[in-house]
Amino acid sequence: MRGAYQDLILPDIRQMVHEDDLDGLAAFCGVVHPAMVAEILEELEDTQIWIILNQASEEVRVEIFEYLSLRHQAELVERLETAQLSRLLEWMSADDRVDLLTRLPAIRREESLRLIAQAERNDIRRLLQYDEDSAGAIMTTEYASLPAAITVREALERLRQQAPDSETIYYVYIVGEDRHLDGFISLRELILARTETQLSSIMQRDPIRVRASEPREVAAQTLARYNFIAVPIVDASDRLVGIITHDDVLDVVQEEATEDAYLQSAVAPLEDTYEETPLPVILWKRGIWLLFLSIVALMNANVIDHYRLTTSGSQEIPATAGLASLILLFLPLVMASGGNAGSQSATLFIRMFALQPSDERSVGGPLVDASLIWRELIIGLCLGGTLASLDFLVAWTWFGRSVSEAAAIALTVVTVVTLGTSAGTLLPLTFRRLGMDPAIMSNPLIAAMIDVLGVVLFYEIGLMLLT
Amino acid sequence: MRGAYQDLILPDIRQMVHEDDLDGLAAFCGVVHPAMVAEILEELEDTQIWIILNQASEEVRVEIFEYLSLRHQAELVERLETAQLSRLLEWMSADDRVDLLTRLPAIRREESLRLIAQAERNDIRRLLQYDEDSAGAIMTTEYASLPAAITVREALERLRQQAPDSETIYYVYIVGEDRHLDGFISLRELILARTETQLSSIMQRDPIRVRASEPREVAAQTLARYNFIAVPIVDASDRLVGIITHDDVLDVVQEEATEDAYLQSAVAPLEDTYEETPLPVILWKRGIWLLFLSIVALMNANVIDHYRLTTSGSQEIPATAGLASLILLFLPLVMASGGNAGSQSATLFIRMFALQPSDERSVGGPLVDASLIWRELIIGLCLGGTLASLDFLVAWTWFGRSVSEAAAIALTVVTVVTLGTSAGTLLPLTFRRLGMDPAIMSNPLIAAMIDVLGVVLFYEIGLMLLT
Repeated sequence: MRGAYQDLILPDIRQMVHEDDLDGLAAFCGVVHPAMVAEILEELEDTQIWIILNQASEEVRVEIFEYLSLRHQAELVERLETAQLSRLLEWMSADDRVDLLTRLPAIRREESLRLIAQAERNDIRRLLQYDEDSAGAIMTTEYASLPAAITVREALERLRQQAPDSETIYYVYIVGEDRHLDGFISLRELILARTETQLSSIMQRDPIRVRASEPREVAAQTLARYNFIAVPIVDASDRLVGIITHDDVLDVVQEEATEDAYLQSAVAPLEDTYEETPLPVILWKRGIWLLFLSIVALMNANVIDHYRLTTSGSQEIPATAGLASLILLFLPLVMASGGNAGSQSATLFIRMFALQPSDERSVGGPLVDASLIWRELIIGLCLGGTLASLDFLVAWTWFGRSVSEAAAIALTVVTVVTLGTSAGTLLPLTFRRLGMDPAIMSNPLIAAMIDVLGVVLFYEIGLMLLT
Repeated sequence: MRGAYQDLILPDIRQMVHEDDLDGLAAFCGVVHPAMVAEILEELEDTQIWIILNQASEEVRVEIFEYLSLRHQAELVERLETAQLSRLLEWMSADDRVDLLTRLPAIRREESLRLIAQAERNDIRRLLQYDEDSAGAIMTTEYASLPAAITVREALERLRQQAPDSETIYYVYIVGEDRHLDGFISLRELILARTETQLSSIMQRDPIRVRASEPREVAAQTLARYNFIAVPIVDASDRLVGIITHDDVLDVVQEEATEDAYLQSAVAPLEDTYEETPLPVILWKRGIWLLFLSIVALMNANVIDHYRLTTSGSQEIPATAGLASLILLFLPLVMASGGNAGSQSATLFIRMFALQPSDERSVGGPLVDASLIWRELIIGLCLGGTLASLDFLVAWTWFGRSVSEAAAIALTVVTVVTLGTSAGTLLPLTFRRLGMDPAIMSNPLIAAMIDVLGVVLFYEIGLMLLT
């Protein structure tokens, strides 16, 4: 139902922009959920996006904008004048605003901050201070709070006033002098209580809290453990400084799982999604690990060489020479290079599937952009080429192999890495297409298949170049 | 702050149970958050747990019980009489109840269902019908709903009545005839609206929904995308049948990430956490994949053998024989076995860390139970032994190797797999202990280190047995 939505509406929107149908676009922004509008906008050009956003009311515009990916947001505001940018920032919610500001160049950040009201500015600067992975960095300062010495009736009255500026009014924090966190009460409890009851008599004292300086995972786990909608964040003196809400925690959990999956397959964590990350960044984040792992594998070849030379002295084990010795020494390197590059691709694609909006996962639709598959091929060639160059040099100089022997290794490595990358991309993709879990194409399984490929290629290339 | 909590209170609780201080235990259950009580109970014996649970009020008892792990819940109810079990089930929330029921033996399930009121029973049977991975299986039927033709004042009145039986009253669904989902309104909007307004004029029409038959990930992603607290679940005729709340979605996201991480490292998904899964189940879930991967590696040895025999005919490449040829053929197998077993351990432990409650992650505390490390050693020996037996047989019969050669392979494999499993356990553990991200100990890195180990061991064992 939702799957067809985007495909149906996108051509209409494109036409409206083309025909300058501003009323139609305004109606579209007003009626459709901002998250859905944002998803449709992601498919358009930056200029088109601004045409549409400008038709929405200021409030809705900011809402839509906040649903766009951070990378896209940063790109879009490049076109804005400083005054416009400041206005946009002023309307944004505190946590999203800080996320965007950290992505802007320092000069632009300072320029736009100067045009924002002093109170807000202090708020922003405080949030910008927190360590990137701390609870403080993902909290919002827009929470609902009340004093303890008022009645439930008054509390509901005041909440109505706070509602427009609060991320949630379902959880209300009771603060004392100097914003010290004294208690907590949920809107549910307020609704159920008698209107003349004092908050102090029904509030929960000493509520569970997280320090702003603690890692953001601590906040995520606390909220998850107690099934909270939000968790209060306090400073070192136990003063309430913000809240972290359930939706932020979901993002944290997803990001942490992605980071762990990447690291586990030897890909340095990426700032954006894999699709959005530029090619040079990917080459660096994957290549640096592959190079390191190749160096370990070359050290391993050295160990094998040591044993080969030691054992060749004994009568019973004759020396191996030529192709066989080349393969004995460098087959582990070839296998590791292909397997590791393939595992990287598989992990990146499987994680991409896991994070994809559900409607794009429907059978039949395009699972990934064809350009991503081509990009993966280029990545394979570049990574393979780099590793092959290293291997060629080390085999030729350190191991004293002939140029044609070193070339055989290099040629095998570049082929195996490219094929490994392709297999790591296409196998999970095929499984997904068949409606099966792509994660079944595990890294060891892909590595095992590439191992066979590596043996065949190494022998064939060796026979071709060396005989 | 919370970290010390458990350590401080556990000895007190043990003593209270020992001294039969029922009032103290009742006070403990009444004051401390049920999630925290549950965490402390997880450390105690089943009989002790029941002593404590019986001191809590029925409502709190069920709440605490629901926070226990599913496996623990199933164990605990084994001791209950059918009447007691029925009573417990009646008090449980609809989704948690169904989860527990699916874990019970069929006879026991039927027995206890018979004692539950007819209306509830129908409800349970309906939920039990849904496919395990569908949205229907994780939804709860305890949602707040209202007709469209009432005023805000009436709506708030009715919500007060529904509150005790609703998982959340912050999202209210407007249902028409035959429970057709007509609209949605949040409690925030209700609080802000004029009391005499009709719901039909302020409700959001055609709200975003998920079909009960759709995969649970679809519900999770829908909720995540729109930052909802809950998402309505409908049947094929668009009738409201339940809701899925933010906390369930967090669980789904964690479980899916865990399942993907396991599959990616060739571990079949587990029903419980790794710590809680019994040894035979783990051996099966890990062993079946390792065996399969070993068979692929043995096929690879066959390919190498084919090339070895083909190329040995040519003048320029002399035949390799003895230890060198054994190593050429079976080194990939040895490396794959050790690397794969090590990757499994590393993934299982890294995922365990990621899911651990935050207070146990504090520096200095015990990161994992020492018994888990010993268990990992036993797992390594068992898995290594199984793979070694297979390798011995295949090398001896299929490849026609001598008994001592086959024994050299087998001995190397069992050693490498055991060491690999230990490295996969201890390296992430050490990194965690040093306050670093254990995921840096990536599977390729552990595999690369085990590769070196494999070479040294294979040569040393070969030299020992064959010369």
